[in-house]
Amino acid sequence: MTDKLIIFDTTLRDGEQSPGASMTKDEKLRIARQLERLRVDVIEAGFAASSNGDFDAVKAIADHIRESTVCSLARANDRDISRAAEALKGALSGSGGARIHTFIATSELHMAKKLRMTRDQVFEQAKLAVRFARNLCDDVEFSPEDGYRSDPAFLARVLEAVIAEGARTINIPDTVGYAVPELFGAFIRDLRQRVPNSDKAVWSVHCHNDLGMAVANSLAGVTIGGARQVECTINGLGERAGNCSLEEVVMAVKTRRDYFGLDVGIDTAQIVPASRMVSQTTGFVVQPNKAVVGANAFAHASGIHQDGVLKARDTYEIMRAEDVGWSANKIVLGKLSGRNAFKQRLQELGIEMESEGEINAAFARFKDLADRKAEIFDEDIIALVGDESVTAEQEHYRLLALSQHSETGERPHARVAFAAGSQELRAESYGNGPVDASLKAIESQVKSGAELMLYSVNAITSGSTESQGEVTVRLQLGGRVVNGVGADPDIVIASAKAYLSALNKLHSQTDRVAAQG
Amino acid sequence: MTDKLIIFDTTLRDGEQSPGASMTKDEKLRIARQLERLRVDVIEAGFAASSNGDFDAVKAIADHIRESTVCSLARANDRDISRAAEALKGALSGSGGARIHTFIATSELHMAKKLRMTRDQVFEQAKLAVRFARNLCDDVEFSPEDGYRSDPAFLARVLEAVIAEGARTINIPDTVGYAVPELFGAFIRDLRQRVPNSDKAVWSVHCHNDLGMAVANSLAGVTIGGARQVECTINGLGERAGNCSLEEVVMAVKTRRDYFGLDVGIDTAQIVPASRMVSQTTGFVVQPNKAVVGANAFAHASGIHQDGVLKARDTYEIMRAEDVGWSANKIVLGKLSGRNAFKQRLQELGIEMESEGEINAAFARFKDLADRKAEIFDEDIIALVGDESVTAEQEHYRLLALSQHSETGERPHARVAFAAGSQELRAESYGNGPVDASLKAIESQVKSGAELMLYSVNAITSGSTESQGEVTVRLQLGGRVVNGVGADPDIVIASAKAYLSALNKLHSQTDRVAAQG
Repeated sequence: MTDKLIIFDTTLRDGEQSPGASMTKDEKLRIARQLERLRVDVIEAGFAASSNGDFDAVKAIADHIRESTVCSLARANDRDISRAAEALKGALSGSGGARIHTFIATSELHMAKKLRMTRDQVFEQAKLAVRFARNLCDDVEFSPEDGYRSDPAFLARVLEAVIAEGARTINIPDTVGYAVPELFGAFIRDLRQRVPNSDKAVWSVHCHNDLGMAVANSLAGVTIGGARQVECTINGLGERAGNCSLEEVVMAVKTRRDYFGLDVGIDTAQIVPASRMVSQTTGFVVQPNKAVVGANAFAHASGIHQDGVLKARDTYEIMRAEDVGWSANKIVLGKLSGRNAFKQRLQELGIEMESEGEINAAFARFKDLADRKAEIFDEDIIALVGDESVTAEQEHYRLLALSQHSETGERPHARVAFAAGSQELRAESYGNGPVDASLKAIESQVKSGAELMLYSVNAITSGSTESQGEVTVRLQLGGRVVNGVGADPDIVIASAKAYLSALNKLHSQTDRVAAQG
Repeated sequence: MTDKLIIFDTTLRDGEQSPGASMTKDEKLRIARQLERLRVDVIEAGFAASSNGDFDAVKAIADHIRESTVCSLARANDRDISRAAEALKGALSGSGGARIHTFIATSELHMAKKLRMTRDQVFEQAKLAVRFARNLCDDVEFSPEDGYRSDPAFLARVLEAVIAEGARTINIPDTVGYAVPELFGAFIRDLRQRVPNSDKAVWSVHCHNDLGMAVANSLAGVTIGGARQVECTINGLGERAGNCSLEEVVMAVKTRRDYFGLDVGIDTAQIVPASRMVSQTTGFVVQPNKAVVGANAFAHASGIHQDGVLKARDTYEIMRAEDVGWSANKIVLGKLSGRNAFKQRLQELGIEMESEGEINAAFARFKDLADRKAEIFDEDIIALVGDESVTAEQEHYRLLALSQHSETGERPHARVAFAAGSQELRAESYGNGPVDASLKAIESQVKSGAELMLYSVNAITSGSTESQGEVTVRLQLGGRVVNGVGADPDIVIASAKAYLSALNKLHSQTDRVAAQG
């Protein structure tokens, strides 16, 4: 058995399925590029057949990513698989290649209640799907959905058949996050023993975190079960309690190499930048006490610990902050910085712009920000470019001007001017607070009817009261959930931008079907 | 071996050691009461000898908690242990009783670099400390700090001696979060086999989450190792990546009772209220994809999942949201609600007020809020009472009035009036945004010199743009870190309140030593 552990990132597919985490094509491409810099082995870019938007995003990623394998999910039917193959074409010329990941549920509960199919029907459909996929793509992965709650004898029969049809990777999901490490590891081990041709495939695990054990379950699948691929997401993003965290599983294998004895290809110094990018793009905050990427993960508060750390760093530290990409906040640019310095910093941050026009537009925003904020940090630049990119893509609504006033004992008031397509709209409103007044003013013209589900603000940079505020607004309308993000040193303006950004997403988003967990 | 798993909560001790999570006495007492409602077996209330503030908090909790055992941490010396015993006196009359938890490091690294003591010195001190503690308190727990990285032969010698001296609970910490489930479970099992009198004590585990496996490690300590106590915190609060999450470990044992076969005494319907209270008190946000208590933990986004859930709930759900205390947001009170309705709601929420005067003050704030906000939710009431309680306790600075204005193209401006003791101060300032301007205005008079480390806002309630904003401000001054929290429908006013609340904490906080992880 090989001693390489394959890291399969599904932030853009399973992660994006979290309510509110949906991303635009440009956002997905930017994250895919960061995943490539992180050197993940496989990037699951989306579920091409689920919507035209998903197809375009998978295609864009397949066209641009060269080092990592680009993968699309597909249900076990010809149409889904054909769409996946079509979207993935561009990846065939990259060194990582393309992968089709097809799935069908195999647990009694899912077959009976969700698919309404018999065992034999599922068996046939799995076999035919893998056969069809192998005609379009060499690299095929098969997942039996709800695998961990499936009958092992039936599951083994299905897996033997799909391996015989040419599936190269067999991925066992714990779809509902029900597993316990010892049991899950033994389940994978026993399954591999039952499947006569099991050595013809790489075995993989896909664990959800409902009971807080996704990382440990995945690793038990590796140590006890013999799996050599782990499916995971940045920040553990994913439906419900999310997926196995990439950063935790990678750092566990690296830190306890004495026990695992496995290599991972990840460039760990790209972990924190990847975490920030995913958090800023989706508006999903990372809690301070999150392992590896939380703000406190490397902070020591208590006197005894501080003393211990000063005396010998390894008394309380098993990893080094710099190894996972934490570095002190640096002032990188200011109002006197020129276009070349800005462009160079973009390159150092790994942000690629499509055209000189895009760079110019981003630079104009940078100068505007630098006029109002003395110190520009890397995080500011990432936010600014994020802003830019969403806007470039699908700017229907755009903030033009805002004026607001609040005073204890009086009703807060806001006046807003914004563009809607080629129209300029103006509105004013009172509200419970200046943010409420501003959002109400916008809504009085847009009349979206969307419900505000979440409102949160984080300072992008710390260290002074001059931080920019980054506001996330989550809206729900007719079952669709979108996040809008806006950044500005003025929190009320940032809120209005975030609200308009969410309205833009509602304006452009198309419906789609979604997938297995 | 018993089939009861003892839940030892250390939110108020290890959790509070997180940078920025320090709490006032009243906040700790309120959380302790919620922990009692949650029916945790043991509440570690603090580290009495570390400061006068900690002593007072442990004493207040020992005086008020009747059902749970109240515990104080103490280093292995007579002074610490005496202080702990003194603070705990009030708990002796409760049905849960009092526990002294004493510790000393046993790993070579910690003994050599931190303690600068030999093995024999550590052995003697551990023995004498437990002997001394048993003279003051029947229930004594001993922890060998950094136990998992200690030499098992030496560790067994120490543990045999402290059990002989009367330690009833032996707690093995993975202080640096270095363990892997299989190894940690085997470590506990082997240790118990090495210690001849191991059956005279309950074995306990205390795991940190640096590699994301604290819950799985704790449970391996139970299943493989035979431990019957787990130390944990609400939301996994704790230094660095935090501790084992109470909610995850409890729900794992409950959901997988088929495997664990253990009883826990926890009233799980109190889990989400406890999570919210700890999050609101400390300002530590819970990420949406956090197991059990995250906002998305029970949300289903993808079409396939929604469809599955509609057809049969257990296709994608292994726990029920209502079992852990999630309930739909209810409008509970409005501006027409009277004092009796308010008082009754406080009782239903488990909020106990010390006097009629306190209730009157809280009711006045409630009426003030109801004038500005149509729908008052439970979360609003909790925030309002939290506000109240901090203020009642140590109100040096207090907001009197605020007026602010911002407009695109102009410099934001704020005017603030606030009380500082018996003085009334007024100030105005420009800033990058209205929040920045307000904080600068306050700082121009207070001149604290504190550094702003974190600024975040969360809407307390969702469902409309009329939510109150809850602002957390984290300040650092001379190595001390404090969080201030403020709530108001106007985000700028909430920010000023949060800033003043943090300044109040800096004004009152005393230095202390802190403890083992």
